Amino acid sequence: MKATIERATLLKSLGHVQSVVERRNTIPILSNVLIEATADGAIRLMATDLDLQIVDSVAAAVDQPGATTVSAHTLFDIVRKLPEGSQVALHAADGKMQVNAGRARFNLATLPRDDFPVIAEGELPTRFELPAATLRQIIDKTRFAISTEETRYYLNGIFLHVSDEAQPVLKAAATDGHRLARVTVPRPDGAEGMPDVIVPRKCVAELRKLLDEVDGSVELSLSPTKIRFGLGAAILTSKLIDGTFPDYSRVIPTGNDKILKIDPKSFMQGVDRVATIASEKTRAVKMALDRDKITLSVTSPENGTASEEVPGDYSAQTFEIGFNARYLLDILGQVEGDLVEVHLADAAAPTLIRENDKAPALYVLMPMRV
Amino acid sequence: MKATIERATLLKSLGHVQSVVERRNTIPILSNVLIEATADGAIRLMATDLDLQIVDSVAAAVDQPGATTVSAHTLFDIVRKLPEGSQVALHAADGKMQVNAGRARFNLATLPRDDFPVIAEGELPTRFELPAATLRQIIDKTRFAISTEETRYYLNGIFLHVSDEAQPVLKAAATDGHRLARVTVPRPDGAEGMPDVIVPRKCVAELRKLLDEVDGSVELSLSPTKIRFGLGAAILTSKLIDGTFPDYSRVIPTGNDKILKIDPKSFMQGVDRVATIASEKTRAVKMALDRDKITLSVTSPENGTASEEVPGDYSAQTFEIGFNARYLLDILGQVEGDLVEVHLADAAAPTLIRENDKAPALYVLMPMRV
Repeated sequence: MKATIERATLLKSLGHVQSVVERRNTIPILSNVLIEATADGAIRLMATDLDLQIVDSVAAAVDQPGATTVSAHTLFDIVRKLPEGSQVALHAADGKMQVNAGRARFNLATLPRDDFPVIAEGELPTRFELPAATLRQIIDKTRFAISTEETRYYLNGIFLHVSDEAQPVLKAAATDGHRLARVTVPRPDGAEGMPDVIVPRKCVAELRKLLDEVDGSVELSLSPTKIRFGLGAAILTSKLIDGTFPDYSRVIPTGNDKILKIDPKSFMQGVDRVATIASEKTRAVKMALDRDKITLSVTSPENGTASEEVPGDYSAQTFEIGFNARYLLDILGQVEGDLVEVHLADAAAPTLIRENDKAPALYVLMPMRV
Repeated sequence: MKATIERATLLKSLGHVQSVVERRNTIPILSNVLIEATADGAIRLMATDLDLQIVDSVAAAVDQPGATTVSAHTLFDIVRKLPEGSQVALHAADGKMQVNAGRARFNLATLPRDDFPVIAEGELPTRFELPAATLRQIIDKTRFAISTEETRYYLNGIFLHVSDEAQPVLKAAATDGHRLARVTVPRPDGAEGMPDVIVPRKCVAELRKLLDEVDGSVELSLSPTKIRFGLGAAILTSKLIDGTFPDYSRVIPTGNDKILKIDPKSFMQGVDRVATIASEKTRAVKMALDRDKITLSVTSPENGTASEEVPGDYSAQTFEIGFNARYLLDILGQVEGDLVEVHLADAAAPTLIRENDKAPALYVLMPMRV
């Protein structure tokens, strides 16, 4: 293999693939990136952790097609430090890969390309497109609710499924048992009959990073066990979580009749301020709802007390309810408009939060005893 | 105590004092900041870790003089989150301190001001002034060489001493046994007869932060056991390290006759690049010196090899020497001009690095076997 490529192009592409590579690997080749120079003037970079795989292609001057694998993090660090604007010459031969740029010369250890594991995609019969902006919205408004409890592995991702309601829709949901986030978008053509799938947290994180650089549409292809995202020159393929996502629709309250309408910004700032003195463990904030007046308060045995009044539109029965401040802030941080609806029932019942009944996103938050 | 103060003023001052407060304290009051409102319209904030103490004074509207102590980090976090431009009302009574701003109300636990430990300064007979810029230079060019080995506690700071040479000078030195950094400045009036002192690392770090906001001069007052820095409204007082700094002048080579003159930027970038593949443990870089040509190289059993040629002005005997890349980068990062002199003797002897013979800073670096 012999090819020359601009430093900036190589760096950007390595940036895409290197974050899939785990820092510690028991299988040595998983630390490596597969570099393949093809006769049609491109370099393909590929990295994997056996569950998630990324392939990125960039233009290069290829003198001699071929492929090898070298340490992904080392190569990324080297290219990062090469002089800006330099041309990087890659030359693999005799179990080594030379990297030359300017006056710097590197001779890196390699592992054979044939040992590099590739995720067999198999058939991916469901295919549809989503605008990159929609996919960003789906991820941003749900990912914070993904569970990190490894024992509940079936909650460690975003659940995607289609549903026939008044309109056919695609729904994305995430929950950790304490809060639930769901985004509903019109069902794209081709998604009909799609299997229910759970996209793992790491795939979501890598996808979200790549989406920052995509303007148009993303091609999704999936089977019950694999999903592939086509993002221009980059292709992300992931195994899906092999488990059953709980029937979350049952926890979305429909009869909560106490409605608070409030400015999410001042609500959020108030919660953030009073939570300053909450103990790290509970992070509990009490909300006392009175006619058009919400009083947020925290009592901490060590630190003292804090309270703040926030104006809101409320005319139902006076009562008190407690929430985990962190969870409430996560949700309020995703609300874009200047009014949010909080649908309450009582101090022990799940609370519904949404911008309005037309908003694609909906959140459910379990209260805490305070 | 009852006083009102602008949020921005209080936040800035709390920023100065809170970083002296350790995150974990076995003595509860050490987590607190002493707040004293004085009849002359000022609030004095004070924090200590028993070795280092800071006092900062700011203007405030004082209704009722008095003092109390509250958690420094909690108060800092609260004030940080208060609305910009708000007025903060402080009111201490009955073992609590109220903090009110806008619609937010906090009632914080306090500890009695009389229990707050104060470092007894005693007599500080030596007094002199140094321009803030000079003090910044002294710290920046030496602090990286301060040892972190706790067993060699007498190296855990910057050594300050005066000396009569062609001119009377004040010298600052730091070393960890592998490298030495020394800055020499003209002896300020009042420093004559000053005792040799070792200023602890934490004091150096806090002082350096405060210096960013000082334009004029800093007043230093010291005895053999304490040092005080007067920086406008802030006063930093520290115990000195009770130990003997080694006679470092003996390790500064005077007869190194192989002189390399080189651009510190390209030297630094070359070292940084080839060191990418060095093992974390040794970080050894080899320098091969040839006529006007320096070849930097690293060999790593896992990663492979790296080399880079850097042009330099060298006409002495050809030889090879090894250095710890991290240490070399620390030193080169402090060189401001576009030429640095490297005075070498042989592969085992301490190497001298300086901008030129007039530069205030001088560095000594022990080589490594490569």
